[in-house]
Amino acid sequence: MIAKISLIYLFIIFSVGVLVAQDQEKLDQTYTLYAIGKVVKNDGRTFIVIDEKYQDGLLGLENYKEVTVVYWFDLNDTPEKRSILQVHPRGNVENPIRGVFATHAPVHPNLIAISRCVIIKVEKNIIEIDDIDAFDGSPVLDLKN
Amino acid sequence: MIAKISLIYLFIIFSVGVLVAQDQEKLDQTYTLYAIGKVVKNDGRTFIVIDEKYQDGLLGLENYKEVTVVYWFDLNDTPEKRSILQVHPRGNVENPIRGVFATHAPVHPNLIAISRCVIIKVEKNIIEIDDIDAFDGSPVLDLKN
Repeated sequence: MIAKISLIYLFIIFSVGVLVAQDQEKLDQTYTLYAIGKVVKNDGRTFIVIDEKYQDGLLGLENYKEVTVVYWFDLNDTPEKRSILQVHPRGNVENPIRGVFATHAPVHPNLIAISRCVIIKVEKNIIEIDDIDAFDGSPVLDLKN
Repeated sequence: MIAKISLIYLFIIFSVGVLVAQDQEKLDQTYTLYAIGKVVKNDGRTFIVIDEKYQDGLLGLENYKEVTVVYWFDLNDTPEKRSILQVHPRGNVENPIRGVFATHAPVHPNLIAISRCVIIKVEKNIIEIDDIDAFDGSPVLDLKN
């Protein structure tokens, strides 16, 4: 009997917890991104390597000269860095302080980075590009024509 | 005694569940986005209304003529739509099928939309822009100079 009551009690606490969590998420309006691939820099060459499960999404990209690469500044993905709202542009204290939304600083609340890149070659799930201002291993979120 | 064992048993199941969930998340490499504001269309005018807690991030934006608005195609945020990898561009079946990464289709695995917009006025947490190809109420994720 006591075991049953404990179970029911625990279940109620758990359910309420889930509901509160869901409601909080709704208030905060969060969205989930998946890494679809990553930046690979090797021997002076730069590649976007797409996860094979997304390879069908590349059909026709070989006909274009450029692609917009959306990636994630994953090295800055900490609550502290994501709370920064003003910076000295280019990290230079002589530049007057400015809001991050008026800059390209890599510490926006959402760490979305956007680069327009020249396509050198598309082969299977790998796109060779001329260059990108991202670190080797940066998660890639999207490609757009 | 039985109650205690039940509690311990439940706790172990719950802990294992949390660990499995964490590990899965690591494998899938997901990232969390916060809405920083929203698109408001009203009486032929278009505004980006930023949540007041992010208002400091707008400092200096009034000095620019244009802003890149990153928003979320929230109406397509379903597992089904996010799994679409090929489309007929512009929804026209006469256009040969193409990978979503070679298009601007609003059904990418990550529903990131990017528009370069002309700034009309910045006042407190509200930016009036000329126009944007987004629905009224679309969540805004980022602004870049």
